Order: sequence, then structure tokens, then C-alpha cells
Amino acid sequence: MNVSDLGEFGLIDRMRKYAPMTSSVVKGIGDDTAVLRYTKDKYLLFTTDMLVEGTHFTRRMGAAGIGHKALACSISDIAAMGGVATHAVVSLGVTPKMPARFVEDIYKGMAALAKRFGVSIVGGDTVRSDKVVINVALLGEVAKKYLVTRDKAKPGDWIFVTGTLGRSLVTGKHLNFTPRLKEARFLVKNFKPSAMIDISDGLAGDLNHILRASKVGGRLWDNAVPLTKGAALAQALTDGEDFELLFTLKESDAMRLLKWQNKRRSWFFYPIGEITKDPRQMIKAKGYTHF
Amino acid sequence: MNVSDLGEFGLIDRMRKYAPMTSSVVKGIGDDTAVLRYTKDKYLLFTTDMLVEGTHFTRRMGAAGIGHKALACSISDIAAMGGVATHAVVSLGVTPKMPARFVEDIYKGMAALAKRFGVSIVGGDTVRSDKVVINVALLGEVAKKYLVTRDKAKPGDWIFVTGTLGRSLVTGKHLNFTPRLKEARFLVKNFKPSAMIDISDGLAGDLNHILRASKVGGRLWDNAVPLTKGAALAQALTDGEDFELLFTLKESDAMRLLKWQNKRRSWFFYPIGEITKDPRQMIKAKGYTHF
Repeated sequence: MNVSDLGEFGLIDRMRKYAPMTSSVVKGIGDDTAVLRYTKDKYLLFTTDMLVEGTHFTRRMGAAGIGHKALACSISDIAAMGGVATHAVVSLGVTPKMPARFVEDIYKGMAALAKRFGVSIVGGDTVRSDKVVINVALLGEVAKKYLVTRDKAKPGDWIFVTGTLGRSLVTGKHLNFTPRLKEARFLVKNFKPSAMIDISDGLAGDLNHILRASKVGGRLWDNAVPLTKGAALAQALTDGEDFELLFTLKESDAMRLLKWQNKRRSWFFYPIGEITKDPRQMIKAKGYTHF
Repeated sequence: MNVSDLGEFGLIDRMRKYAPMTSSVVKGIGDDTAVLRYTKDKYLLFTTDMLVEGTHFTRRMGAAGIGHKALACSISDIAAMGGVATHAVVSLGVTPKMPARFVEDIYKGMAALAKRFGVSIVGGDTVRSDKVVINVALLGEVAKKYLVTRDKAKPGDWIFVTGTLGRSLVTGKHLNFTPRLKEARFLVKNFKPSAMIDISDGLAGDLNHILRASKVGGRLWDNAVPLTKGAALAQALTDGEDFELLFTLKESDAMRLLKWQNKRRSWFFYPIGEITKDPRQMIKAKGYTHF
């Protein structure tokens, strides 16, 4: 058996199987970030993302965008837990022949985003590698009362998404997207999302993560999924790398959110479906597979 | 100008130049780990290490050793600050054709070490990559009074090392070394090391890091550096990947440590030189360069 037979989630399961845990861990492997004990009122959030040249980007995409993306993916994970991002450490693998300017532009792209989100870049490692590899590990924090995981969606909840989906790789959105942290903070402060996740593998795959973790089913409404210009529903379901947030709200909260939005018209939360009782009711479409 | 002209430390300087920082950061880029505000009595430590196939290991070296090394490097960084390691997140890049068993053995090697040091593995990312890449980001903590950085060595201090140096790659020590965390904890609890660092680039390079950061000079005593069997002094100075701790103690503490050691004979701290006033007195030997 090789890695492609096992698949990404098989691999992660193997890791979980061996991973030692102590009582300081509130949530380990299996959500957007780990959740650790911290202070009386807050949890510490901890996540890591690796981007590899040829898999997640090519050099022609531009260094600043690559740096932006490397940090933005991790901020999006912190957002999906309802938290704020605080401190990052960055590992970079590059070839000796790479122009110094290229590396500098990666750092600049990353630093610009870090500044916008109040993230301190506090450490790094630089190593020799034929292909460019960037790893960002990010800390965040969240008030205990604001923590949202992916396993508490309930039958009758409405399903929402924070923006249009599909064709992220074609449009370049995957290199310049704004992580939906502000939107997530608004949600956790004013509503009580029952589950939340960021869409990295495509709507189908990531919604199924919520359904599986919450032991419920789900149904998307006809024509409700907001599509990026030129995208077909199949692309919204499976393209991945949209980095929008996908969340569920009980019906009364859903009504309140739509009413608020109707009045204010500044952000857009799209209702796209509902949670059902039957855990066999999964979203049918194959998400992006890494292997 | 390309990356090899700039060198590893030039690269890190570029990163530091752009890295945004907030008041929560006690120490950012430039020591073994970052130091962050945490509780009234403790600091949070945060570090990251990337290992790339072909640069830091080959597949033939065995998966368990590779997994061990990936985490051990980071634990060694936490030890060098006087702290204990707590939580790790692990990113792994592998090819789809890699035997699942190989990945499993990487995790097992890492998990075994994590268990020994009370580290919880709380998150991960798995991505597609032609070459195997492993990144470990590690959190730790340290009582404020036990924190040791690399910039407080004083003229007259003695220089110590925790074990023999040289030929780590040949002997396989780089794949199975025990991070000197226990020894570091003993030191910070019973003495007051003025500076500490782990030896990853070779004795010369890493001692020079202490000298430069502390704005002092240093001198190694003739024949005092403990050599791994078969190693010449030049190898101890430059081979790198020894992951022993290098630290400085004021003379009275040095005497006390040697007396204690003489009585107990269980661990071995080797006195190898002294700190001098003249910051131009650096250790002459070229350390391992990454680029």
C-alpha cells in the first residue's frame, strides 16, 4: 500500500493514531487548528500549513502572492475556529541559485498580510531545497465562549458560506484572498455558529467534514451556491482553495443574520442549504485529493 | 545577487527586516526560539525546523530516524532556552508512490520521542511533494527566571559543552541523538548559565553566534574540546548537527558545576574555553553553510 491508496485523510489518521496527547490538549488533530489550554477565559490555537512548488504554486505566480498565500491559509484556519491570529514562525526551503529578490518578495508579501492582521512573525528556518517549500505555523487565541469547532452542526441548522466559490486557481484568488477572519469574528460575537470550517478542498469535501464530524446529513439548495464568475457548480463543489468560511447556524440565528445583512448590505453571507438528520445524506462530488 | 551570496543568516536578516512585531513578543527572530508573553511567571517558546530530503537526510537512513530527528532538532532548540517542550504540529510532504509504511514509520519515530519528552502532537498537514519534506513547529514554556538567551555571556565566563562533537553525520548521531533538555533543566535550576545555544552548525559557528550576540570574544583551550571517536578538531568545529548544548557560566558557577560533577559522575559537562573582552576574538573555522 502506498500513500495515494491511503489518501490525505488516511495519512492524518495514521498520525493521530500515534500522536501522544496530554491533558493540556482540548482538541488535537482533526479540526482546522489544535485547541490548547491557555488562560481562564481563553484557548490557544495552533496550526501548520505547508506549500510546495509544483503542488500549490509555481514560481511564475510571483513571490509576493506565494508569501501572501502561505500565511493566509493559516490565518483562515484560525478564523474558522472563531479566533484571532497572533504569532507565526516561517520555514523556507530554497535553492542556492534563487535570486535573493525572490525570497525577499516572499517575505514582503507575507509581512504585508501579517501587518493587516496584527500577526507577529517571530521566527524562521531557512534550508536548501531544489523546490521552493514554505511552511507557516501560526498561533492564535479565542475566548472560550467564542470557540467554534466542526462537530456541533444540528439537524435544522442552515448552512452558509462567506463568498463565491470555484475557479480559485484560474482567477488567482488563491494567491490574493483575504482570510475571512473579520467576518468570523463578527459571527462569533453576534451569533452562535454551531460549526465552522474553511473551504480548502472544495465545498463538497469540506461540508462533508462538518457532516461526518457532527454525525448529521446535509442538503444544498438548488441554485443557492454562489459561483465565482464563469464557474459551474461542479467547480464550486470540488475546485478547492477558495478559503471562504462554511458555517452552520440554527434557524433563528440564520433569520437574524439575513435580516441584519438585508439592512446593512456590507458583507455577504450566503445561505446555501440545511443540515438534516440522516448521516448518510452526504454531499456527492469528489473533492480535491492531494494524493 | 542570489541566495547563496546572501547565505542563511543574510536570509534571516531579510526576514527580520520585514517581520512585523507586537508588544507580546519578548524575543523575535535571532535566538534558538521566539519568546512570547504568556503567564505572570512563564514565557511561551515557539520554534520551527524544516528537514528536506537530500539536504538533511536520505530515504535510506530509515524513516524512524528521520521522524526522530525532525522533532529532536526542535526539542533541542527549546532546551537551549532553558524550557520544556509541550506541543508540536507536523507538516509532511511526500510523493503519492511512497509506501504508506514509510510515512507510518516517520510518525512512529517522532511519536516515540514525543512521548519521552511529554510533547503532545496536536496537528498536521500532509501535502504532495517529490522530495520528502518534514516541518515541525514546537511550543514550549519556561519560567521567566530560568530563561537563557544567547546574548548575555560575560568576559571571564567559562564555556561548556554537553557532549562530544564531530562526525555526527558519519556516526548516525544526527538521527538518534537525545536532545539535551534534561541537562539544560538541571543547569537552569541549579546554576545560572549566562548564555546557551544548541550546536547545529558546528562548534565554531554556534559559539560565534553567542560571541556576536553578547558582544564579547572567546577562546577555546588547547585539547579541551571533547571529540567524537575518530573526529579531528576541525570536524568538531565545523561538521554541525551535533545537537549538544553550548553554554557559558560565570567562574564561580563553573567551579561549582565541576565539583558537583566530580562527586556524582553521572552527566558530563565539558569545560572547553573562556569568554574574553575583545569582540574581535572570534573562533576561526568555517561552520556548515546551508547555501
